Amino acid sequence: MITRMSELFVRTLRDDPADAEVPSHKLLIRAGYVRPVAPGLYSWLPLGLRVLRKIERIVREEMNAIGGQEILLPALLPRAPFEATNRWTEYGESVFRLQDRRGNDYLLGPTHEELFTLMVKGEYSSYKDFPLVLYQIQNKYRDEVRPRAGILRVREFLMKDSYSFDIDDAGLAASYHAHREAYQRIFDRLQVRYVIVSAVSGAMGGSASEEFLAESPVGEDTFVRCRESGYAANVEAVTTARPAPLPIDGLPEPVVYDTGDTPTIASLVEWANSVDLGRTITAADTLKNVMLKIREPGGDWELLAIGLPGDREIDERRLAVALAPADYVLLGDDDFAKYPFLVKGYIGPKSLRENNVRYLVDPRVVEGSSWITGADAPGQHVVGLVAGRDFSADGTIEAAEVRDGDPSPDGAGPLISARGIEIGHIFQLGRKYTDAFAADVLGEDGKPVRLTMGSYGIGVSRLVAVIAEQHHDELGLRWPSSVAPFDVHLVIANKDAEARAGAAELAGNLDRLSVDVLLDDRQASPGVKFTDAELLGVPWIVVVGRGWADGVVELRNRFSGQTREVSVGGSLAPEIAAAVAG
Amino acid sequence: MITRMSELFVRTLRDDPADAEVPSHKLLIRAGYVRPVAPGLYSWLPLGLRVLRKIERIVREEMNAIGGQEILLPALLPRAPFEATNRWTEYGESVFRLQDRRGNDYLLGPTHEELFTLMVKGEYSSYKDFPLVLYQIQNKYRDEVRPRAGILRVREFLMKDSYSFDIDDAGLAASYHAHREAYQRIFDRLQVRYVIVSAVSGAMGGSASEEFLAESPVGEDTFVRCRESGYAANVEAVTTARPAPLPIDGLPEPVVYDTGDTPTIASLVEWANSVDLGRTITAADTLKNVMLKIREPGGDWELLAIGLPGDREIDERRLAVALAPADYVLLGDDDFAKYPFLVKGYIGPKSLRENNVRYLVDPRVVEGSSWITGADAPGQHVVGLVAGRDFSADGTIEAAEVRDGDPSPDGAGPLISARGIEIGHIFQLGRKYTDAFAADVLGEDGKPVRLTMGSYGIGVSRLVAVIAEQHHDELGLRWPSSVAPFDVHLVIANKDAEARAGAAELAGNLDRLSVDVLLDDRQASPGVKFTDAELLGVPWIVVVGRGWADGVVELRNRFSGQTREVSVGGSLAPEIAAAVAG
Repeated sequence: MITRMSELFVRTLRDDPADAEVPSHKLLIRAGYVRPVAPGLYSWLPLGLRVLRKIERIVREEMNAIGGQEILLPALLPRAPFEATNRWTEYGESVFRLQDRRGNDYLLGPTHEELFTLMVKGEYSSYKDFPLVLYQIQNKYRDEVRPRAGILRVREFLMKDSYSFDIDDAGLAASYHAHREAYQRIFDRLQVRYVIVSAVSGAMGGSASEEFLAESPVGEDTFVRCRESGYAANVEAVTTARPAPLPIDGLPEPVVYDTGDTPTIASLVEWANSVDLGRTITAADTLKNVMLKIREPGGDWELLAIGLPGDREIDERRLAVALAPADYVLLGDDDFAKYPFLVKGYIGPKSLRENNVRYLVDPRVVEGSSWITGADAPGQHVVGLVAGRDFSADGTIEAAEVRDGDPSPDGAGPLISARGIEIGHIFQLGRKYTDAFAADVLGEDGKPVRLTMGSYGIGVSRLVAVIAEQHHDELGLRWPSSVAPFDVHLVIANKDAEARAGAAELAGNLDRLSVDVLLDDRQASPGVKFTDAELLGVPWIVVVGRGWADGVVELRNRFSGQTREVSVGGSLAPEIAAAVAG
Repeated sequence: MITRMSELFVRTLRDDPADAEVPSHKLLIRAGYVRPVAPGLYSWLPLGLRVLRKIERIVREEMNAIGGQEILLPALLPRAPFEATNRWTEYGESVFRLQDRRGNDYLLGPTHEELFTLMVKGEYSSYKDFPLVLYQIQNKYRDEVRPRAGILRVREFLMKDSYSFDIDDAGLAASYHAHREAYQRIFDRLQVRYVIVSAVSGAMGGSASEEFLAESPVGEDTFVRCRESGYAANVEAVTTARPAPLPIDGLPEPVVYDTGDTPTIASLVEWANSVDLGRTITAADTLKNVMLKIREPGGDWELLAIGLPGDREIDERRLAVALAPADYVLLGDDDFAKYPFLVKGYIGPKSLRENNVRYLVDPRVVEGSSWITGADAPGQHVVGLVAGRDFSADGTIEAAEVRDGDPSPDGAGPLISARGIEIGHIFQLGRKYTDAFAADVLGEDGKPVRLTMGSYGIGVSRLVAVIAEQHHDELGLRWPSSVAPFDVHLVIANKDAEARAGAAELAGNLDRLSVDVLLDDRQASPGVKFTDAELLGVPWIVVVGRGWADGVVELRNRFSGQTREVSVGGSLAPEIAAAVAG
């Protein structure tokens, strides 16, 4: 069916919307693909919906190709299953909650692990029914603190969520791997540039997980990677390259110095270089001890000290993940007052040990490393305190910030950081959810087997924005042909009646060749039409212009900008169709 | 793609679910098409989702064919637009309401008139942009008092809602007519038996509306129709055939009688036939006066009397529609005590008139009709009270029950009643919503024109149940081919390896001919497989059975039950494909 611009429900805008910061937001609004309704809630206009549906179709094809079976659950979900996994509480304010007229509690589903587990438990009872992959493509809801960037972070969004059920770990690994490959095919077909990063499972529970991040400077997720080895990880999941232990023999004994008023790392380094310690001292030579209180679920608050090189700050996202599921809070002045052995600015391992404070150190604090650190008295530090000889910790913790240039954990080269947009996430959940619902089936040996589970998501509607972020220029959008709302944007830039009729006929011929045509048949100037064509971003622009009289139309590629003339005649439509098909 | 029963996520049940009353509910559960999650909330399993998507596609095709443009709005909607039309209040408990983390009010959209009006107002500004038809296919939410009958009445359901915008009444009439015809094509393609009935607009506002009701004994809507003329109307919308006025000249004067203890119509009729009134009296000869209090929006309670033939009861659905938007309540004993002139059981028009009580009568109370009615004193009635001579009313009201055999308003024959399930509803809304948002565009003469609007709905997910209601037998479902989950159910009923391989090859050949095949390759008895095939209701069942050795397979039509043998050979798949294509 040919779509005519004179009838299409679209109005393009010359100016960027006032609240738009990122290119995809600006362009999708200006080109009339989406419209805001309320914070984090958008409407899809015909052009936007066409792109959304094309992405959905590709996702569906690849999910079916790995044996996924599509089903569809409600978005409105009762409270009880989420009580069983404690997520009714854990979700906090991040989900939308409501009550029906009888006062029963519901939420708008942000993800469906509980319901899929219950469904599989309800239907299947034998190991013969597995492996099983079920998926749905459905609106999900999250009450984001800060909806932002147009449709990149919204409160109602279309997601593909799938769930694998297997009877053993090898099965789960295979299902996980199949999803990983399907996701790669999906993002490749969508022409999204992405990286797969190691991730942490967080509130989802489970063991292994990876994120698919679309590379984008406007992304909210920071990740690091090593160009040499391909290692990539979410900042939360980066493991620190652990230096080899150093020989302790021959290292000088520690010496306590009066360092004066040196409660900060900077002031301590300044002092160290003002006296002769035999070498130049940097912050990396100092050991900073950061004090926290932590509380395990259901437990009491306890002290925790974290020792890390003085040139590093704590990264609170990494810290939170490392301590999860415990809560934590940095120690305040009130707390310090309660513990006189903690001399703020001069805390050292000695006092921590003497007072049985749990002490975790950065992985760089290896055996044999020598540090300048607090001596547990005001104005005093100790120089040459050697790990493994003069002090020891209760373990290590991944809480220090990750920096560009840090060595990759595989030793292949330096890490560099980049920003990305999460477009997919795959989890090996294991038995967290099947345990909650006792989802057992009869095994081959006649004994019950607890199912093991994976969960896999793709942000379908977000991908519209992600593709727009990665494929645009200053003139407008540039859709990859796999998701473009139309194959050809046919611009009538000639007022001559014969040319107009010829263009309509050409559109009809292309349509018969299964080429989706947007025909700009409006009574507007060629300039207005060209500007709109560039903005809308259909990959091929065909111009029926002045050349029509000379028997040629112009074929322009929106990606390359290349233009060529094609002769009008019987084979015109097939020629264009061939070019479009690539 | 061939679907194998051994892998399909389905489990059929032998027994009806305990809570299922209607056939579609029983069969859709037993055949594994849907599963309940909570009251009025269902999941769609692969078979059910296939049917749902096929219906959705037919709806989409026909909406596109009348120039409808598909868009997609959020289901989660902010309060403000619904305040502008007062529906935030009017919806009462029938919608799901919730607040976000900032305390802002939202609802889950039951219908989208407000949002579509705002969207069109936001995009378009000239008469040239019209007519315009926009639609979406989207989950809708209603907090039903009594979710029932499986997926017939649920709280989350898939609906196609469309909205037409025109600059004048003729445009609206054309858009309405186009929808009416599109709906007829849709329901015809779905092989749904339906009637189009006149309806009342109710809370939607607007002038004209019709309902599409699927004929079904389990329907919640009662309608009447005249076989002779084709007149059909929702009970609420039936207009009473008004008898011709009768000559008054020569009618005897009214006479007041002591009727004793005769406060009911039955006792009054008994009295009337115990004295000689010159003819046999029936309840239809008496005039019953029913007392109510009504209150217009924002007004005070006022008395209202309704006079109707004594053989008719008030139909409260019709009464509510006739009085809308006023509230009403039947007069209680307390109220009677307040008005001594109302002698309960003996109320007559005289006292109502003397005390200025508003008095509406049934359309059958025509001029010249003579009645036995109350004489406003205990134990007294008046006989021969003639309308238009001895009393008159302030108007007529359509509040009496409609009965089988009542004459059609067009005089063509008797009305008969039937039950139906609402599957579509079309409204000429006029300017109710465009007035609320001042949705004007520039007219041809340069002056602003207020848009006029229509609203049109189809219950897409409900249609799955409706089709199941109309197309099943005692063995199971029987899907019309336009919506069947598969074209062919290929049953392997032969354990022979060659037959199994032949069946798989046949499935492959059918698949290549674009025939959707469900291959029952399970290790189960032929009996189990046949039972499941009948239950699932795929329109063609192909059996690779004992005949395989003799070179034949069986081709069975699920609708007609007819069976024929087809020879195995090179043309087997094309022959079956031709049969399937009809």
